[in-house]
Amino acid sequence: MPVISFDNPLFTTYVIAATLLILKAAAMSWLVVVRMIRENGGFRSPEDLRKTLANPNPNPHQLEPNPHVERLRRIQLNDLESFPYFLVAGLLWIQTQPSLTLARWLFYGYVLTRLAHFIAYLTAQTHDMRALLWTPGSLILIYMAASTLLTALL
Amino acid sequence: MPVISFDNPLFTTYVIAATLLILKAAAMSWLVVVRMIRENGGFRSPEDLRKTLANPNPNPHQLEPNPHVERLRRIQLNDLESFPYFLVAGLLWIQTQPSLTLARWLFYGYVLTRLAHFIAYLTAQTHDMRALLWTPGSLILIYMAASTLLTALL
Amino acid sequence: MPVISFDNPLFTTYVIAATLLILKAAAMSWLVVVRMIRENGGFRSPEDLRKTLANPNPNPHQLEPNPHVERLRRIQLNDLESFPYFLVAGLLWIQTQPSLTLARWLFYGYVLTRLAHFIAYLTAQTHDMRALLWTPGSLILIYMAASTLLTALL
Repeated sequence: MPVISFDNPLFTTYVIAATLLILKAAAMSWLVVVRMIRENGGFRSPEDLRKTLANPNPNPHQLEPNPHVERLRRIQLNDLESFPYFLVAGLLWIQTQPSLTLARWLFYGYVLTRLAHFIAYLTAQTHDMRALLWTPGSLILIYMAASTLLTALL
Repeated sequence: MPVISFDNPLFTTYVIAATLLILKAAAMSWLVVVRMIRENGGFRSPEDLRKTLANPNPNPHQLEPNPHVERLRRIQLNDLESFPYFLVAGLLWIQTQPSLTLARWLFYGYVLTRLAHFIAYLTAQTHDMRALLWTPGSLILIYMAASTLLTALL
Repeated sequence: MPVISFDNPLFTTYVIAATLLILKAAAMSWLVVVRMIRENGGFRSPEDLRKTLANPNPNPHQLEPNPHVERLRRIQLNDLESFPYFLVAGLLWIQTQPSLTLARWLFYGYVLTRLAHFIAYLTAQTHDMRALLWTPGSLILIYMAASTLLTALL
């Protein structure tokens, strides 16, 4: 049976985790958009001070960093630092034919701890709490990559 | 027929869009390089003020943010916030066997609106125009990911 | 023989390069963590000044940019600007059935020049040296994407 096929439960598990992460990442962009509209600021380009339909009363303060928008951008960057790597690592790792149980724990564990990390970051929990929720995802990524590397080398 | 094969027009369509986006992203890095050379500035590391063959007359202003270089970096980051996700989402979505017509519209529509967004950003069009050209790409990404997720779940 | 299979030496070569890059990227996040602990600063969120187990004596200087932490973040961003694209480009390029010798040169050449670039950036070598070590990776990425695009078009 080919690995990359919806008949393969390993692949289906990967796809569910991967598409949830992609939707989460796409949602981050929209959260930034919505926040910039609500705050009427947090813009970054000089031309964003031009008078337009969406910005009828421009003023220079709109280019200052807005704490709410900056928080969302930090979360987005934090996702970027691992999501693309996880998406590729996961696809390669299922080629090593891990057990479905382990795959479910790791794929869904990554998604769930990343969602928890997002909520902790959004609601400004302590740095310690964020670190605690960030660590499992990083270890899962390292495990998948290292395990796939070993299979390729041996 | 395997999905991932140049005999499959769905895969070929995906590959054309994917490689165009990758070339666009690689070009962004070179645009930043060329702009830093032309502006003789926009550097970010303290050691970039050392006297070298490429920088025979260093001066501290070279470390200040340069508006032209910063604009290119914002465009590059904007690409980064969706290209990697689109590349993975597209590869997974063609596993759901969408119609070739729809795939062409979505893949080429994404590439074309992203190129238009790039030109609008580079030439400092209004925020409204940028938003208008950014939205289709984001909706295409969300559609592909959501549609693939549903196939995996059902 | 399917392309995506550990029986295919092209795929195995790709997997070795890809997983090394993913491990390198994951290591960058941990280097940032370790540096922030050693510097006791370089934080970015206002809530990181709250008194916690890991930060028993908070002070406002901890939110200032720390040169060592910022350097690691620039390296991480530089990786992000090409690793995800290389990971996808490499997977698509092996579908074009390049020779194994060329694949080994390009895949391992990318990994080695990126590791050399990392060491040059970390130890604050000149901008010229960094540029010299950055260029091969970018050209390899462009070659892979362009060559795959041509195969898809022809």
